[in-house]
Amino acid sequence: MELPSKILQEAVDQLAALPGVGKRSALRYALHLVGQEEAGVRDLSEALLRLKTDLHHCRHCHNISDTEICPICASQKRQRGIVCVVENVQDVMAVENTQQYRGLYHVLGGVISPIDGISPSDLEIASLVERVRSGVPDAVEEVILALPTTMEGDTTNYYINKLLQPTGVKVTTLARGVAVGDSLEYADEITLGRSIAHRIPFE
Amino acid sequence: MELPSKILQEAVDQLAALPGVGKRSALRYALHLVGQEEAGVRDLSEALLRLKTDLHHCRHCHNISDTEICPICASQKRQRGIVCVVENVQDVMAVENTQQYRGLYHVLGGVISPIDGISPSDLEIASLVERVRSGVPDAVEEVILALPTTMEGDTTNYYINKLLQPTGVKVTTLARGVAVGDSLEYADEITLGRSIAHRIPFE
Repeated sequence: MELPSKILQEAVDQLAALPGVGKRSALRYALHLVGQEEAGVRDLSEALLRLKTDLHHCRHCHNISDTEICPICASQKRQRGIVCVVENVQDVMAVENTQQYRGLYHVLGGVISPIDGISPSDLEIASLVERVRSGVPDAVEEVILALPTTMEGDTTNYYINKLLQPTGVKVTTLARGVAVGDSLEYADEITLGRSIAHRIPFE
Repeated sequence: MELPSKILQEAVDQLAALPGVGKRSALRYALHLVGQEEAGVRDLSEALLRLKTDLHHCRHCHNISDTEICPICASQKRQRGIVCVVENVQDVMAVENTQQYRGLYHVLGGVISPIDGISPSDLEIASLVERVRSGVPDAVEEVILALPTTMEGDTTNYYINKLLQPTGVKVTTLARGVAVGDSLEYADEITLGRSIAHRIPFE
């Protein structure tokens, strides 16, 4: 469909680059915005830009944060010797929602996936090993590997465990209550909570 | 789901205000943007804002345009005495796609709908009557009412026809090839093209 305006076309192209958004949806969003007040569109525009300009990644756990160190890493009420390793920000939210975990996190930013060109150096794996080795910000007693139960997740578990062995830290993994092949983000809270309660030593 | 950041929350809230976008999709879009380069997000942000700051509505037909007068209204190759009245910008694109229409347009910006609080004064109806009466930019010989075949569309047809009667202009409406209750935007091109070819005098 040919659009009557390059400005509209540009906005539609940009919106259609969002995951799961097609040209027709993008056009609907753009024309909706055309019908809004300028102040409202400016708010949206600025809110999106702030995701890049103002948002921090926590210096310790690499979770998204408004501050240099996220509220979880800054809290003295958490069990600071336990670090739960997750794939992404959504997984932190999923585990937090179970209200069964009081330790800290480490967000890898993905899992090892040669087919997608994601190698260990693209992930926060070196920083995890350094965090365990140096004991900064806190001495780590246990690392819980809470990656998705997919081939990529298992590969990443195996890789991290091998790197952590020399440090002598206790490495555990989630109980397989989460169905194999499912994403952590969509698991129900009871299953995910049980997986944390029944975590098992990594073999 | 509680988000770890107010900046993220604000972006999610703004995205969830788009039509048909829920909180979970909005979160997916926002986290996708967090993972993009700043330049890319800035392009998106600016493209959306330009929809309000740089986009014009054509002075004659009120279609979206990059210029004060849209390419269709500016073209001397169109049949300048025929004006097709449509509900919105999508409908202009739909009619253009049939490649069966060579006249001009008039975009109402909606149809009369008391239940949604849309009265004739919210629409470009007065400007249509003035356009026919004054013959600016061109003398109008025929007005084609191409509004959706819904109760609101029919009401608007009736209202416009009544206002145009004193001018003596020929008023036609689309042949009812478009299924009643369907939106013009989603009609297939053959049906919509046939509706234009077989337009009938308005009674």
